[in-house]
Amino acid sequence: MGLQGGAGNKEEAWPIEGVIELELPNEETARVVYESVLYEHESVPYRRSRIDFLLEGNRLIIRFLAKDNSALRGTLNSYLRWIKVAIDSLEV
Amino acid sequence: MGLQGGAGNKEEAWPIEGVIELELPNEETARVVYESVLYEHESVPYRRSRIDFLLEGNRLIIRFLAKDNSALRGTLNSYLRWIKVAIDSLEV
Repeated sequence: MGLQGGAGNKEEAWPIEGVIELELPNEETARVVYESVLYEHESVPYRRSRIDFLLEGNRLIIRFLAKDNSALRGTLNSYLRWIKVAIDSLEV
Repeated sequence: MGLQGGAGNKEEAWPIEGVIELELPNEETARVVYESVLYEHESVPYRRSRIDFLLEGNRLIIRFLAKDNSALRGTLNSYLRWIKVAIDSLEV
């Protein structure tokens, strides 16, 4: 899936993978939210999950690998919370 | 994406979509966990998210649409928690 550092054997080391796509009302909103969340994305070292966070037009894309269910829940909750805060701050 | 009842305009009504795939150690484990979670899946009416929950060999697949970020978090947390409970009960 082209994730950073994803050279390991996914079947053994990263049994969970997936993608979430969020469509924003327009590209400008998507860009502002993306840059806000990107700051968090780049600040946090994850050890039990690997995340690609991408902007494509008016869509935010989160691609992930996780070692276990709990790691995934923690990671997704963080990203979805950051995105919500960024959107709320724009009053979209 | 072939989701149940997903006839609406995704761009407007369901701005979030995605998929999570979980690989279990073998098909028998996957089947037992799947059937356990399927019971919950079929018991709960969701209004702000739509979920397809599938078994393919030793993989559980959750495909989803959501109206908003909060709906997605709630839904994914439920599914990931049910899966964790089912796995823990097998002592995998």
